[in-house]
Amino acid sequence: MRAKRIAIVGLGLIGGSLGLAFKNMGGEKVIVIGIDHDQSTLQKAIERGAVDHSTNDLAEGVKYADIIFLCTPVLQIVPIVEKMLPYLKVGAILTDVGSTKSFLAEKLSAILPAGIHYVSGHPMTGREQSGIMAAEVDLFRDKWYILVPEASTCSEAVDEISQVLKWTGARLTTMDIAAHDQCAAIISHVPHVAAAALVNLLELYPDLEDNFKLVGGGFRDTTRIASSNADMWADICLTNAQTITDSLLNLQALLDEVIQGIKKGDRQAIHYFFKRAKVRRDALIAKTDSHAIV
Amino acid sequence: MRAKRIAIVGLGLIGGSLGLAFKNMGGEKVIVIGIDHDQSTLQKAIERGAVDHSTNDLAEGVKYADIIFLCTPVLQIVPIVEKMLPYLKVGAILTDVGSTKSFLAEKLSAILPAGIHYVSGHPMTGREQSGIMAAEVDLFRDKWYILVPEASTCSEAVDEISQVLKWTGARLTTMDIAAHDQCAAIISHVPHVAAAALVNLLELYPDLEDNFKLVGGGFRDTTRIASSNADMWADICLTNAQTITDSLLNLQALLDEVIQGIKKGDRQAIHYFFKRAKVRRDALIAKTDSHAIV
Repeated sequence: MRAKRIAIVGLGLIGGSLGLAFKNMGGEKVIVIGIDHDQSTLQKAIERGAVDHSTNDLAEGVKYADIIFLCTPVLQIVPIVEKMLPYLKVGAILTDVGSTKSFLAEKLSAILPAGIHYVSGHPMTGREQSGIMAAEVDLFRDKWYILVPEASTCSEAVDEISQVLKWTGARLTTMDIAAHDQCAAIISHVPHVAAAALVNLLELYPDLEDNFKLVGGGFRDTTRIASSNADMWADICLTNAQTITDSLLNLQALLDEVIQGIKKGDRQAIHYFFKRAKVRRDALIAKTDSHAIV
Repeated sequence: MRAKRIAIVGLGLIGGSLGLAFKNMGGEKVIVIGIDHDQSTLQKAIERGAVDHSTNDLAEGVKYADIIFLCTPVLQIVPIVEKMLPYLKVGAILTDVGSTKSFLAEKLSAILPAGIHYVSGHPMTGREQSGIMAAEVDLFRDKWYILVPEASTCSEAVDEISQVLKWTGARLTTMDIAAHDQCAAIISHVPHVAAAALVNLLELYPDLEDNFKLVGGGFRDTTRIASSNADMWADICLTNAQTITDSLLNLQALLDEVIQGIKKGDRQAIHYFFKRAKVRRDALIAKTDSHAIV
């Protein structure tokens, strides 16, 4: 059986980590071709063993590929796919790792010809660092990797991607597309906006600048994801727009619950706000921890 | 030289950790008396070696104390001090660990008689777990411990508390009271409210409940402090009320910056929002890390 040829477009944290995992577990059964516009990234990907071959020529990189992982910020995906279409072989499977699925499903279904398959995916993992040097072979291990069959073009292609993803050690699951985009908004997108907002809040108090060194573990953890890649997050906001703005309005309303409670001196209301958050989070973390053991 | 007698009122995370640190480094030079209304907490404090003696009788616990650490939620402090005043010896020093300083300074200055000193303090440390079993001997080590001389009754008492706090390994610093309360609001109080709000946001989407198991490290870290003690945080909100509500309104306005950016499809504005958060946070973390090394 000939080796599977996997092209990875965009050798950042996710693309680089996929390459490391494929090479680590796939061994001789897989050939990884890394594609990136940045020459130094390509060189580091080779040095780190994340790819077998590297190129900044999209046509060259994808022409023999069985599977193409699209690992750029979301808004770059459609233009890149348009560019590569003439060079793809019949039967090639495109799959992406973007955090917003409806946008891509709609745009891609409009341009993909027969014989080119698409599998919609989203790994629930990350780090606040980005780039090839932040990539880790175990980034996906025991983490959820969501596939959206509803937005994918055929079930055989979904099966094929599922097989390949087993090399990453991820826990595969499936979701409906609307549920995915709403769920991603409230458990990931809105927390990213909130974390960045908490950091930007500091800029309104320049007189206190010298005191910000006092930040403890609470601020550090709450804002960790505010150190993420700005390009990636700008694209996510614009491609899950309505869902994110609706959820941000709901978050503002929840903050208002505390503002009103404080103004009225209503200790019971404020206590209830913190208490139900604690109860819900403790239960959620216990549940995800028990899943992690299984 | 006779041993210093330190009473700790409220043997939770902070009170318990102070006891552990005092006994660990102070040894024979310190006698720690633990005071709590909960019998099981008192027993655990003895078992863990956080206190030499324990009692639920406030008068009994404080009557020989040279120093009394007030480690209950903020709103309980003034009533407790009122109760203990008749039993304190002349020259006793009261000090608290509350997160809001103006409220306490005002209330305590109105009731403290001559001969009883007060030192206003705030350790910048914590864990999301609470209670005596969460206490740690090193909770304060290399963490900032703020003293507010402006809100304290005499400089000798501040010196005395500073000496005792050296046993904890904390890094002592001083702040003006207004700067403290504003700074604490934006680096600690508002992040706690935001973290709880992000958790409470989930309750608005009951249909997605089964999918919340997908939460990754981002949600987990961003909301870690939402698992904190609700009583403690309700009291903080009510005793730093105006500063917290003003800062929450500013946070809402920052969220609005993103909402408007998304509505207008203004990628540059959204990118700038994430980018400046990343730049500021990375610089802040690098600065606090370099402080930590010193």
